[in-house]
Amino acid sequence: MTHPTSSGPRHAILREVGLRDGLQSVATIVPTAAKLQWIRDAYDAGEREIEVGSFVPPRLLPQLADTAEVLAFAQTLPGLKASVLVPNLKGAERAIECKAEAMLLPLSASYKHSLANLRKTPEEVVADIARIRDARDAMGAKTKIEIGISTAFGCTIQGDVPEDEVVRLVKAVLDEGVDAVGLADTVGYADPAQVKRLYEKVLRVAGDKLDCAHFHDTRGLGLANCFAAWEMGIRRFDASIAGIGGCPHAPGASGNVAMEDAAYMFASMGVDTGLDFDRLIALRGRVGQWLQGEALHGNVWRAGLPKTMKKEAEHA
Amino acid sequence: MTHPTSSGPRHAILREVGLRDGLQSVATIVPTAAKLQWIRDAYDAGEREIEVGSFVPPRLLPQLADTAEVLAFAQTLPGLKASVLVPNLKGAERAIECKAEAMLLPLSASYKHSLANLRKTPEEVVADIARIRDARDAMGAKTKIEIGISTAFGCTIQGDVPEDEVVRLVKAVLDEGVDAVGLADTVGYADPAQVKRLYEKVLRVAGDKLDCAHFHDTRGLGLANCFAAWEMGIRRFDASIAGIGGCPHAPGASGNVAMEDAAYMFASMGVDTGLDFDRLIALRGRVGQWLQGEALHGNVWRAGLPKTMKKEAEHA
Repeated sequence: MTHPTSSGPRHAILREVGLRDGLQSVATIVPTAAKLQWIRDAYDAGEREIEVGSFVPPRLLPQLADTAEVLAFAQTLPGLKASVLVPNLKGAERAIECKAEAMLLPLSASYKHSLANLRKTPEEVVADIARIRDARDAMGAKTKIEIGISTAFGCTIQGDVPEDEVVRLVKAVLDEGVDAVGLADTVGYADPAQVKRLYEKVLRVAGDKLDCAHFHDTRGLGLANCFAAWEMGIRRFDASIAGIGGCPHAPGASGNVAMEDAAYMFASMGVDTGLDFDRLIALRGRVGQWLQGEALHGNVWRAGLPKTMKKEAEHA
Repeated sequence: MTHPTSSGPRHAILREVGLRDGLQSVATIVPTAAKLQWIRDAYDAGEREIEVGSFVPPRLLPQLADTAEVLAFAQTLPGLKASVLVPNLKGAERAIECKAEAMLLPLSASYKHSLANLRKTPEEVVADIARIRDARDAMGAKTKIEIGISTAFGCTIQGDVPEDEVVRLVKAVLDEGVDAVGLADTVGYADPAQVKRLYEKVLRVAGDKLDCAHFHDTRGLGLANCFAAWEMGIRRFDASIAGIGGCPHAPGASGNVAMEDAAYMFASMGVDTGLDFDRLIALRGRVGQWLQGEALHGNVWRAGLPKTMKKEAEHA
């Protein structure tokens, strides 16, 4: 895997995180059957990476209590990479037992956010990650370990997060042998100039192990930040249908980058994502029904595709 | 004036176009007194360029019938550059008589949009522009002539607009001696890759005469497009408080880039705009009262500034 610049290969992967990052921050509990339909519809719309849930104690996140069942269904769809979030060794062991393609471990670059959110210092989380890798290897499992560096662009509790601290933590987890690292703007503080600067710094130490960008659209910069990361050669982006989600520690948060908006932007740029726009919009409508009363986000559903892109679809 | 790249000078001008592009597309007629307060408040918030109205027949746009009076007030504010849109020679003569700092002439790069919107071919508009420049020079006036190349990124009627046609029309008006040219995404079709590509092409023929970017946020890409143009060295952007506006020929249009969102993005990037965020948000509230029932847009008003930027304000 190499890191092409924006003049390189013109394809991108958009990973659906609505079923985890989305659902964990809304009050509604979506029935398992609806989640399976969501995954089936997302798959039919061309999605090939979905974060299907989180192995956390059900009393903390009852919305995600059915993660094992949801994961099992996702694994029946050919070519779909189903990942789960795990907060600790116990969760990781479940992910490994369930043969998840990948498990995502959050590591806050903000010391204060780490204490508030995980009740651990970043160093303690790095030590956990090492134990999780040991456990994975001892079990002979293939589940990939992906680290999401959260609050990489700033923190609602601590404020500034030094870029050097992000670089230091990326180095630390790479030294522990993790498979991939992504940077996450957990609270919607990132701007596109900062995105380019920080990705450049982290790419210097991580190379192609840094392969994901997770932006929230809290202040309307989600897509601008995706574009900035794209220009740095990043080809994998988290997004959620209707932009559902957000961080409970980010007041006023307006959620993740909307999958359908990101799909539109990249398609307009001539970047292949494998996604079917009309099917995404149809799924958005169903998600809106499952989450009645919850805020939906995104822009392009209102205006629809430009005439220039509709024509292409008609010719296809 | 030179065209710095994104590593060059870190300041940008955000021109308010809400009083023209905004008001012409909403049904509400804002009283003249409110427009004067709007301009006063925008000025107090740091705005130094405002498009105050349009010299079109009042029967076509009664919302802008008081443009001469509004312009006269704007001219009393020291250092404020007040511009007006003019559709033809008659309007240009009024702008010159009123000593407007600049007059903006739209020229559609889409042949079909030009016919539908101005009832003239692009060539006829170029000929008009030549006559307007002759009239301006014959009167010994200093009013600058700025051409806004509308539908430069695509057209709801025609679909694709060839990039070479945009380049050709920019050359044609520069040959007629206009002072400045901007590219306008009248219908919200632009994407950031296209923005970089087209600005690069046009900068090659226009140099520092190409100094403005006018994006609509129809499909959520307004700020991503501003960032892309910024990266090409553009330092002047149109925006409107609360993103009001849009094109009557652009169905579902969600308006201009919101001034307060653009001000936030550039401030977050460390770019000086001279704008006071809190005053812009306060003005947004008043504009919402003047335009009751009209759709407001923008994102950052909901979440407010990040803690990192608030801290700076407290220290200032």
